[in-house]
Amino acid sequence: MEREALFTLLDEFQIETPSWGYADTGTRFGKFFQAAAASTIEEKLADAGIVNRYTGCCPLVATHVLWDFKADTNPDEVVRLAEEHSVRIGSINPNLFQDQAYKFGSACSPNPEARREADAHVEDCIEIARAVNSQVLSFWFADGTNYPGQDDIVTRKRRMEEALKKWHDALPPGMTMLVEYKPFEPAFYETDIADWGMAYLYAKKAGPNAKVLVDTGHHLQGCNIEQIVAWLLDEDMLGGFHFNDRKYADDDLTMGSIDPYAVFRIFHEIRNAAELHGRDVSQIAYMVDQSHNLKPKIEAMIQTALTAQELYAKACLVDRKKLQDAQTRMDIVDAEECLREAFYTDVKPLLREWRERHGLDADPMQAYRASGYEARVAQEREAARQERGEVAASSYA
Amino acid sequence: MEREALFTLLDEFQIETPSWGYADTGTRFGKFFQAAAASTIEEKLADAGIVNRYTGCCPLVATHVLWDFKADTNPDEVVRLAEEHSVRIGSINPNLFQDQAYKFGSACSPNPEARREADAHVEDCIEIARAVNSQVLSFWFADGTNYPGQDDIVTRKRRMEEALKKWHDALPPGMTMLVEYKPFEPAFYETDIADWGMAYLYAKKAGPNAKVLVDTGHHLQGCNIEQIVAWLLDEDMLGGFHFNDRKYADDDLTMGSIDPYAVFRIFHEIRNAAELHGRDVSQIAYMVDQSHNLKPKIEAMIQTALTAQELYAKACLVDRKKLQDAQTRMDIVDAEECLREAFYTDVKPLLREWRERHGLDADPMQAYRASGYEARVAQEREAARQERGEVAASSYA
Amino acid sequence: MEREALFTLLDEFQIETPSWGYADTGTRFGKFFQAAAASTIEEKLADAGIVNRYTGCCPLVATHVLWDFKADTNPDEVVRLAEEHSVRIGSINPNLFQDQAYKFGSACSPNPEARREADAHVEDCIEIARAVNSQVLSFWFADGTNYPGQDDIVTRKRRMEEALKKWHDALPPGMTMLVEYKPFEPAFYETDIADWGMAYLYAKKAGPNAKVLVDTGHHLQGCNIEQIVAWLLDEDMLGGFHFNDRKYADDDLTMGSIDPYAVFRIFHEIRNAAELHGRDVSQIAYMVDQSHNLKPKIEAMIQTALTAQELYAKACLVDRKKLQDAQTRMDIVDAEECLREAFYTDVKPLLREWRERHGLDADPMQAYRASGYEARVAQEREAARQERGEVAASSYA
Amino acid sequence: MEREALFTLLDEFQIETPSWGYADTGTRFGKFFQAAAASTIEEKLADAGIVNRYTGCCPLVATHVLWDFKADTNPDEVVRLAEEHSVRIGSINPNLFQDQAYKFGSACSPNPEARREADAHVEDCIEIARAVNSQVLSFWFADGTNYPGQDDIVTRKRRMEEALKKWHDALPPGMTMLVEYKPFEPAFYETDIADWGMAYLYAKKAGPNAKVLVDTGHHLQGCNIEQIVAWLLDEDMLGGFHFNDRKYADDDLTMGSIDPYAVFRIFHEIRNAAELHGRDVSQIAYMVDQSHNLKPKIEAMIQTALTAQELYAKACLVDRKKLQDAQTRMDIVDAEECLREAFYTDVKPLLREWRERHGLDADPMQAYRASGYEARVAQEREAARQERGEVAASSYA
Repeated sequence: MEREALFTLLDEFQIETPSWGYADTGTRFGKFFQAAAASTIEEKLADAGIVNRYTGCCPLVATHVLWDFKADTNPDEVVRLAEEHSVRIGSINPNLFQDQAYKFGSACSPNPEARREADAHVEDCIEIARAVNSQVLSFWFADGTNYPGQDDIVTRKRRMEEALKKWHDALPPGMTMLVEYKPFEPAFYETDIADWGMAYLYAKKAGPNAKVLVDTGHHLQGCNIEQIVAWLLDEDMLGGFHFNDRKYADDDLTMGSIDPYAVFRIFHEIRNAAELHGRDVSQIAYMVDQSHNLKPKIEAMIQTALTAQELYAKACLVDRKKLQDAQTRMDIVDAEECLREAFYTDVKPLLREWRERHGLDADPMQAYRASGYEARVAQEREAARQERGEVAASSYA
Repeated sequence: MEREALFTLLDEFQIETPSWGYADTGTRFGKFFQAAAASTIEEKLADAGIVNRYTGCCPLVATHVLWDFKADTNPDEVVRLAEEHSVRIGSINPNLFQDQAYKFGSACSPNPEARREADAHVEDCIEIARAVNSQVLSFWFADGTNYPGQDDIVTRKRRMEEALKKWHDALPPGMTMLVEYKPFEPAFYETDIADWGMAYLYAKKAGPNAKVLVDTGHHLQGCNIEQIVAWLLDEDMLGGFHFNDRKYADDDLTMGSIDPYAVFRIFHEIRNAAELHGRDVSQIAYMVDQSHNLKPKIEAMIQTALTAQELYAKACLVDRKKLQDAQTRMDIVDAEECLREAFYTDVKPLLREWRERHGLDADPMQAYRASGYEARVAQEREAARQERGEVAASSYA
Repeated sequence: MEREALFTLLDEFQIETPSWGYADTGTRFGKFFQAAAASTIEEKLADAGIVNRYTGCCPLVATHVLWDFKADTNPDEVVRLAEEHSVRIGSINPNLFQDQAYKFGSACSPNPEARREADAHVEDCIEIARAVNSQVLSFWFADGTNYPGQDDIVTRKRRMEEALKKWHDALPPGMTMLVEYKPFEPAFYETDIADWGMAYLYAKKAGPNAKVLVDTGHHLQGCNIEQIVAWLLDEDMLGGFHFNDRKYADDDLTMGSIDPYAVFRIFHEIRNAAELHGRDVSQIAYMVDQSHNLKPKIEAMIQTALTAQELYAKACLVDRKKLQDAQTRMDIVDAEECLREAFYTDVKPLLREWRERHGLDADPMQAYRASGYEARVAQEREAARQERGEVAASSYA
Repeated sequence: MEREALFTLLDEFQIETPSWGYADTGTRFGKFFQAAAASTIEEKLADAGIVNRYTGCCPLVATHVLWDFKADTNPDEVVRLAEEHSVRIGSINPNLFQDQAYKFGSACSPNPEARREADAHVEDCIEIARAVNSQVLSFWFADGTNYPGQDDIVTRKRRMEEALKKWHDALPPGMTMLVEYKPFEPAFYETDIADWGMAYLYAKKAGPNAKVLVDTGHHLQGCNIEQIVAWLLDEDMLGGFHFNDRKYADDDLTMGSIDPYAVFRIFHEIRNAAELHGRDVSQIAYMVDQSHNLKPKIEAMIQTALTAQELYAKACLVDRKKLQDAQTRMDIVDAEECLREAFYTDVKPLLREWRERHGLDADPMQAYRASGYEARVAQEREAARQERGEVAASSYA
């Protein structure tokens, strides 16, 4: 691939970082608090702006309605803050799991009150999306059951179908609804959208603006994720990604930290769809969703963005003509080596050049560290929390 | 549930045993040969007849075209043999994996020769199905790839779509085509029909007479199989089952030997679909597909049929009114106990009574053992193999 | 097995319920609060007393030092409270994961401060254990790393060896130290005690009073837990259990809710060890450790105790002579049926009789529900929390 | 790391290829035969010689007693043939699974006849090992059970302990016995050496010359293999490896084809043990054990050797001083980047240079292909098979 063509592809490869990725998160056993972690939407947007400033490829920020848009938050003010930090609001994420009403689910709950609450919340989300000019409403449901018999699987399925159809029809023109799947956690017997097949069927029934969201950590062990990506692309049903890595369950580690070759193969299928099968891949939302609770938040996000770029660049470098030829000749070794050659290519010089062209620092991590940003906001935010009288605490039992 | 209603449900619960379940099978590390194992279609039908004679619930026999219908086999003769042993031919199973041509797949192979061979074989299978008056053409494909890059996933998908559509359209009226999925083995990187979502989409595209086949051993670890069954039933896309049990991969152990509560929950969803959601479940094909290579063949099959009946009877006994009430009240413990109460009910007396009504022996296993059948055919078949000059041998390398 | 012999075995089968099982727990996505959930050690002991009163088999309570013994808690008072509720303090559980110091581990942390804090905490725990006359110090470590390279695996191993040896040597005579293993969560790359082999080696190196603790939810998918139990018993290294059930990861569902046959097989190996291999199984600690966050706390615990008793009774009923005979004859079907026959035996009448002999209600769940306890304490505890000014809150981000 | 130091490490990194890797293998569903596949020990040694000639790092050949040493094979002749092809006999592998006697196991079988046969076979193997001057007797057992209750786990454990002890004591001085573990397949309920903990205990009980063999495909999903390697090295119990890759079960794909970063991490732990913890790693046997049944045999082996060298070289390049420093500072990002930097380093130029120094072709695969060897032996071997009257056939049922 020509250098210029690659650079164009890199220009188009834009990553959305999540507002909650700058805040303290943890496991059920507790949270380890970071002084520099963001609490307010302003702090989160500031951090996202920093990540974009050093990487040059993270102009969008996913927001979480419950955590980022409080009752008294003015959406216009959020848009302004984003602009101030040179980022834009990306996807809008409803929260349909945290309220006590959702004990038995949200859209699928046997409790009509919970379903009503979910309904009202999604209406609010659509309003906010409209107000901040977001194009993507991104649904993840914790809905499911913990014990055999707890609820009727089919009845729950139909409740979900009805809700998604209704919400789809309430979308303003141009807005896409993403339906995310996950095999388990926090539901431990049955999850109402457990795999891509279920998400696909829900999206199809909801309507033409519904697509499937693939979170790379939301699969059973062994699952061939790149095959699912290839299928969804071929069915024109891939809406986007939540990127993260995992070794066991939904570990939410930083992307590419455990199995980088698998991430490369996902990107390879996307480039295949575009270059071999004529698919339009320009609307895929590349979103990060991690819980890097031990790594410093911004460093983790910069590392993630750089890793994503590197692996995407490697996938762009696959010699597709040579590959197709080897596949036609049924020469497995040659075909496989096309992928391996691209994967093992050292793309760091290319990416340094891409950064220089965009007036970015050649080593974003080092430049960020040298800036002293983390130490500065740590001090400021500690003080602000103290002023607000916040006490960071979390206990399993 | 009333005893009479339960007995009617048991009358309708008919199991299809596979011809290859009476023959020697093994693992890649070798086969352990049984003297009484069946080699010819006549021997297999005789054994299936024995299983049906003692259990009273296995009137159908699945046949495998390559192994059961040789070039010189007269289908009419097979039908006659089946009748002689008081069984009927059930599903017809093409073999699209054993021939050397299928090294890179059958319908999905990049090798046009392999695709042509697959095509011709399926045409033959349809002919045979017509001739033996079978209603079910049951497809399992070993198609897939072993290494990243070996072949293009989307190109393979389209080859499969085309083939299935063509074969669907060649089906005689009234015949159903089943599409089975499997996550891996013998393909170890990517399997062309890897999960229910892919089987569903292939079947939908093939046409109205294509349904999905659920093999209980063909799922990744942790997968909630009963949920898939509930979904397929609700989408009117469940064609039937291949029953077996597993602890690790596609272990092909006898049904209910590892996790009987899971099998019970599958049957529970079927009864739910029928009784709560008005689904017609009468066309579901309950087929056994195991590789009980250590247990004596016929004993394993009798044990399987009895286990299936017991677990099905338990599922029939779930008090669905009480369950629905507990679910509505969101009383998880009460709801769960509805399932557990049914599962732990001792149904053996009921099944003994059902057998007596049908003139069967109350203890089929004991009766079969007392018959001396195994010892007798062992002797006969050893002699026959000797006469044919067959030497049983199998080596991994 | 004779009824009297079975009843003696049931008398000896005593379950320890965890104090934290009566408090609100949740997942990383939040907690659903129950009005009747216990907050104080007094409330927890009261609830444990109720469970024991209705089941007659739960006389012991595991305590968690951080959550149950505050700085101003008088251990003697805890003992007195336990007596008041007719229970005894069972195992003492240090907490080496919640404090901010433990961000990179406790005993294995590269941070010497964390190791010192762990040290001091364990010393306190031993003091408390001595004071409340507990015989069991039960260790679970969250220690591990999230990313390849984060820390040196061998260096961490040696730190753990040293700490456990030191703590072992500080145990008062007669006290046992249990070492629990877990493959992952909250560490998502490497866990310092990841499997039974590591726990075994640590315990061996610590000294003769260290044994292995098997938490039934702490294994990779597919793992044969009963085999590990059989091995540990044969090596005289099984200290006890944490019972719970799971379908996916460490789901912490109530015991026997997902795969009851697997629990039965564990009990079968224990009875085998005792009856066939002459092992002393009287010191095994049968502890419950679940996070039944949706089920009402006490109901979940009663259901668990009843399930454990039923499955244990079934395992006692295995005809071991018949089984050994079938195994010797290599008759797989007969051997397997020995287990299945026991598993499917309806033991409810036997357990009702056992309860009547002990002056217990024949249906403990119904009797508990009829008592109105939950509604009463819900009101009292709500009021108490209000008085203390507590606000229940939990948020993922 | 200095170039010269790296080259020395590469010189010491010698790979043993398996004789059966040059023969036709397959899955239980059949074998796809390759015209050039080796049948006789002479052909296998010739192929191994070719792999060594082009890669320069595969001087050893593992042999399988049953398949390579027939009753009339003269071990001296095998040694001579090896020398002729410039390779040496490496490990000796008994076959304790293929004979019909082993239906219920070998060393663990309840059948005394099977145990006697195993005994005699191992004695033969030791004789052969002595005759061909092999230092390594490498045990893999298929022993296990398929159904709960089939046999007594503890009784089987003791049979294995006794056998291994006996065989250990029969080893000539200087010979090492390797004990391999595997979680499942071909045993599908319980495997008698299921994990590293069991292999460790068996080896410890057998005696000082018994070590554990890690086959990289023999672990449950998610298992952290490099941690096991680090532990075994720290306990001085790591004997060697069987290298291959897998995505699902024991898929036996070529090494590094699915998750190369995981292989790199294993090598990293070996280098860590040597450089940080002073372990002697010179005796580790690096053996390949794959079933590349679709790839051309020799190409697959060359690809494997090159991949192993590249990943080993990358692991040698980890800056251990920098890593230790980052670990001490608890800087996760810096520590992780030490590994990633080494992994993503392009080592191909270094390896080309290493080859040139050894008078090897810079591109071994291309050179081998250019040699025309495969086409030539394909013709010869086809003819030889025809002359011997061999018919290649394999059928699942």
